[in-house]
Amino acid sequence: MKILNSISAWQKWRNAIPPTQSVGLVPTMGALHAGHQSLIRRCRQENDICTISLFVNPTQFNDQEDLANYPNTFEADRKLCEDEGVDAIFFPDYNELYPDDYRYRVSESEVSRLLCGAHRPGHFDGVLSVVMKLLNLARPDRAYFGEKDWQQLQLVKGMVEAFFMPVTIVGCPTVRDTDQLALSSRNFRLSQVDRQKAAGFPRILSTQAPAEQVARLLEADGFAVDYVQDFKGRRCAAIHCGEVRLIDNLPLYEKGEHI
Amino acid sequence: MKILNSISAWQKWRNAIPPTQSVGLVPTMGALHAGHQSLIRRCRQENDICTISLFVNPTQFNDQEDLANYPNTFEADRKLCEDEGVDAIFFPDYNELYPDDYRYRVSESEVSRLLCGAHRPGHFDGVLSVVMKLLNLARPDRAYFGEKDWQQLQLVKGMVEAFFMPVTIVGCPTVRDTDQLALSSRNFRLSQVDRQKAAGFPRILSTQAPAEQVARLLEADGFAVDYVQDFKGRRCAAIHCGEVRLIDNLPLYEKGEHI
Repeated sequence: MKILNSISAWQKWRNAIPPTQSVGLVPTMGALHAGHQSLIRRCRQENDICTISLFVNPTQFNDQEDLANYPNTFEADRKLCEDEGVDAIFFPDYNELYPDDYRYRVSESEVSRLLCGAHRPGHFDGVLSVVMKLLNLARPDRAYFGEKDWQQLQLVKGMVEAFFMPVTIVGCPTVRDTDQLALSSRNFRLSQVDRQKAAGFPRILSTQAPAEQVARLLEADGFAVDYVQDFKGRRCAAIHCGEVRLIDNLPLYEKGEHI
Repeated sequence: MKILNSISAWQKWRNAIPPTQSVGLVPTMGALHAGHQSLIRRCRQENDICTISLFVNPTQFNDQEDLANYPNTFEADRKLCEDEGVDAIFFPDYNELYPDDYRYRVSESEVSRLLCGAHRPGHFDGVLSVVMKLLNLARPDRAYFGEKDWQQLQLVKGMVEAFFMPVTIVGCPTVRDTDQLALSSRNFRLSQVDRQKAAGFPRILSTQAPAEQVARLLEADGFAVDYVQDFKGRRCAAIHCGEVRLIDNLPLYEKGEHI
């Protein structure tokens, strides 16, 4: 398994792959968990070459404290990738990936303003910009994103269509803990008490009731609610549990009921 | 010579070109003149396959009247391309190229605000967004842009670097009429009187004097001046001659003198 820190090393390695070989990319911010593992396995299964990027992208953090607190577990990440048969890890630093210091960006004017976008100004500009960079560098046939970040998944798919990028975006099911909490690198930051309490989030979110009522039930359970909103076939929500912001979404039935 | 109107026809044609063949693209808004012809010839010379796009891009027009008045000379354009040995013309309509209706865009936060950007809000967002689309569709090894649009050339080069796009941007010298007026599709719209008067623009712009003084000389000659400003080794200017906005630029010597 190659670990490539520089753009030039990455490009040299990428250019040596013959066009007959298919390439998959799993873009991540590191702190890998079983959710990422499921993306890597699907990528490994569907492509000749399986690549992953580990990059905590500062331009998508509107909250500098959130960025500073983002977990860094490189050694464990490296081992997980090795065990899963990843061919190459791309692990650049900010200056490598942003030679322009973020003068250039990709933005979206409608969907990016809703849900998480309304609470995290500039967040999706950062996401779309870094994904564009990573896709152009890795030139994958397929790139893998978790459905947990439903709005992000829709926006990345939209960007790829709008700019005719030659890649298929593959959305993968959310992986959940035994108590149904969606796996997230941010769960590591929950206190034991808050971690137990957080199980109420997916439980209440699956209540078959209007979104406003679900929001009130979450508040009654002690969460600070950013939003509960139906969007493109899903009920999406963001809450604060202690110091940690958590998001989740569940599919809606046609009649507005949950699976 | 192929004329391809739809994205799908273009992609099918593009995908049939073997990777061993080099591809060049000349992105244009049609109304081709000898300036475009010089880009096409260079493209033809340097690549196995020479392609051109003709698309009057509405998102880069801040002025709807300017857009409505933009010359349309498709039959003459087609003939020029045929005579120059172009392999394929890409001639899409707005809905084909903007399936997102311009929800997604590329922007730049510094250089795009200067010079023409200060006078044409949103102009360079439109330019960068459409160039990104065209480059992703045509996947050229080289793309050709005129130095007449100096600021645009710098911004396109910057975008390609920032997003690691696998293409070389080739800037080509401005082609001038016998009286030194830079060729532009907008020159067609000058009255005979204004066309004669416009010769004063390059003449005065080449005066070896501070930019502010050159602006005053242009005004004294009856032009409305948007700006005269030194930028990245060039003296750049935009003026209005009658109803028509003209731009030009000349290289600066190190001492601030012109060639």
